[in-house]
Amino acid sequence: MNPKIEKLIKQFAKLPRVGNRAARRIVLGLLQDKTGRINNLVDALIDANENVYPCPNCGVLTDRSLSQCEYCCDMSRGNGMLCVVRDLADVWTLEKSGVFNGRYHILGGLLSGMSGITPDDLNLNNLATRISNEKVTEIIFALPNTVEGKTTQQYIISILNNTDVHYTELASGVPLGGDLDYIDDGTLSLAFGGRRAL
Amino acid sequence: MNPKIEKLIKQFAKLPRVGNRAARRIVLGLLQDKTGRINNLVDALIDANENVYPCPNCGVLTDRSLSQCEYCCDMSRGNGMLCVVRDLADVWTLEKSGVFNGRYHILGGLLSGMSGITPDDLNLNNLATRISNEKVTEIIFALPNTVEGKTTQQYIISILNNTDVHYTELASGVPLGGDLDYIDDGTLSLAFGGRRAL
Repeated sequence: MNPKIEKLIKQFAKLPRVGNRAARRIVLGLLQDKTGRINNLVDALIDANENVYPCPNCGVLTDRSLSQCEYCCDMSRGNGMLCVVRDLADVWTLEKSGVFNGRYHILGGLLSGMSGITPDDLNLNNLATRISNEKVTEIIFALPNTVEGKTTQQYIISILNNTDVHYTELASGVPLGGDLDYIDDGTLSLAFGGRRAL
Repeated sequence: MNPKIEKLIKQFAKLPRVGNRAARRIVLGLLQDKTGRINNLVDALIDANENVYPCPNCGVLTDRSLSQCEYCCDMSRGNGMLCVVRDLADVWTLEKSGVFNGRYHILGGLLSGMSGITPDDLNLNNLATRISNEKVTEIIFALPNTVEGKTTQQYIISILNNTDVHYTELASGVPLGGDLDYIDDGTLSLAFGGRRAL
């Protein structure tokens, strides 16, 4: 294979969720395209690379020239609710669903002995300041329902040591449309434990 | 979502085999990466876009400053065998397998009434010239085993109208490791029709 093409394929194959096979198809599609798709992609990449950075307040990626992102600047979101999430993808998921209209706080990871992620690796420094500055009354933990997620949640509650704030977490249980046959024992046990009176 | 990020996601989602969800993950991975992956990707894209073009002889994408690609210039491949394929991906597949060491001819598509692809859309103009110039003795059709593939094959044989050349096609049948239970009737019928004496 031509070395320039091979190099481009390798760059694509390094991307998450793109394997070698898909990278080949992508490169082939791009090189055979005559509508300037490569140029559009290059322009968008350069623009985002040069102008997008994490909001110093909440961690959301933004291109705002002000010091804060669109969520932190939005006064209608200053409703006292702060949703703690692992990464930006979780913010996008929540925004798409429309279930939450407060502000976010991106941790950038979860505590994990296995991966060696310690509290210093998480975006926690300004969380206490945010709670007082933004008059936060409820912290909603929307973290993965895993050992790492729960550990991180407990750790944050312990370091904040703030009894004026209401701490909540997302409900666990059977997903909508979930067939009991296909649900793992852990979820089933959580769903039983949290059963609701009708 | 930030408009610059959204634009970049849209560019990635247009690529083959990349959906909206994968595009989000890719963009997130790229923007959060600190090893300069975006710059490497941009450089490889610009380099390939500016320097790679189809070989005027066989259609393979190349960056050779000479008029011909690495396959056409390679004298050891001038063994009289010419493999006719649909696109560059097929060349890569065959090269990876190592089963063929002659030259290629990329059609750039297959005749199809459904998609409105006519002989004018295929790279056929120089095929007759190649046969005489490169002293081709055998044309191997490695086209998809479909109605379009077979139609295209028959059409090419009819326009070449050259009885000195040996025409062959890839064998049809049960794939290696193929369980008869999972094989469609068409393949089974071809495999029966082409059964070999032991």
